[in-house]
Amino acid sequence: MIIIFTGNGKGKTTAALGQAIRALGQEKKVLIIQFIKNISSGEHKFFSSFLFPLSSFRIIKGGKGFVGILGDKLPFSEHKKAAQKILKLAAQKINPPAGGKKYDLIVLDEINVAVNLKLLSAKKVLDILKNFPKDKDIILTGRSAPKSFIKIADLVTEMKEVKHPFKKGVRAKKGIEF
Amino acid sequence: MIIIFTGNGKGKTTAALGQAIRALGQEKKVLIIQFIKNISSGEHKFFSSFLFPLSSFRIIKGGKGFVGILGDKLPFSEHKKAAQKILKLAAQKINPPAGGKKYDLIVLDEINVAVNLKLLSAKKVLDILKNFPKDKDIILTGRSAPKSFIKIADLVTEMKEVKHPFKKGVRAKKGIEF
Repeated sequence: MIIIFTGNGKGKTTAALGQAIRALGQEKKVLIIQFIKNISSGEHKFFSSFLFPLSSFRIIKGGKGFVGILGDKLPFSEHKKAAQKILKLAAQKINPPAGGKKYDLIVLDEINVAVNLKLLSAKKVLDILKNFPKDKDIILTGRSAPKSFIKIADLVTEMKEVKHPFKKGVRAKKGIEF
Repeated sequence: MIIIFTGNGKGKTTAALGQAIRALGQEKKVLIIQFIKNISSGEHKFFSSFLFPLSSFRIIKGGKGFVGILGDKLPFSEHKKAAQKILKLAAQKINPPAGGKKYDLIVLDEINVAVNLKLLSAKKVLDILKNFPKDKDIILTGRSAPKSFIKIADLVTEMKEVKHPFKKGVRAKKGIEF
């Protein structure tokens, strides 16, 4: 099943994270690949501080941090190279070679954003998803999911911002935003 | 901060769960109280199968299962009694007595639904939230959040269903829906 969490509201990555927990609880194998942010955040600390059966869970921090904001000085070409490198890795995980590890749930975190920023082409992502086995699950997160992604998805939720404290000038909060 | 995850789409409870993971990773104390479902699900299995510093996390399964659906034969008064009992407990956790344990994040899972089903009065919930310290966080989940809750909340996301496989006759899937 292909699941998309999109929209301008809070809760897309955290919902994917919650799905990961739920799947791990049911003894599924889970892989999270982050396409954009690579700052150390609560979830990384959590997953690195508890005892995990390592074979059932992996989180890969891809990307070169925030793109074009928060003092980003990296050339666009570097961000693009990083995103494409991580997509290549994702492709191997999604369609593993014979004998390769098969994950039950793969989260492609912020991949919608990577496509919107033109770090990745939607077509290349679709080509990879095309052969994903229907009995496994994949979650694509990030605002403004491309229409072509929504078309092929089985389940799509739009996280719509109704109220957000940043608009009132409240700063990002440790343990909530990161 | 008071956060609401509402709407008819998938991802409300999982987003709250993801927030819990993020907060735990930042060494916060987290409590999850479930108002409606009490079936054993992936997240319970996860949290009971890994080594946790017990003092920083607790999950309380309240409620008497699904209300009025899925073969529920329990009288409404029993559901109501159970919901009110769990609200009383929630009140003690939200506003602990001097020397009582203070949680940094409290998730009141499906409390919006409990109010909509008239198991709880919105006013009683608001009375409890009124004194919640602003430096701590509380998440209310469930579809159709009462307007009075949205009014007092700092952050509200509506999880809007765009596409859902159940409409095409696909059954709930282990590790994804529960």
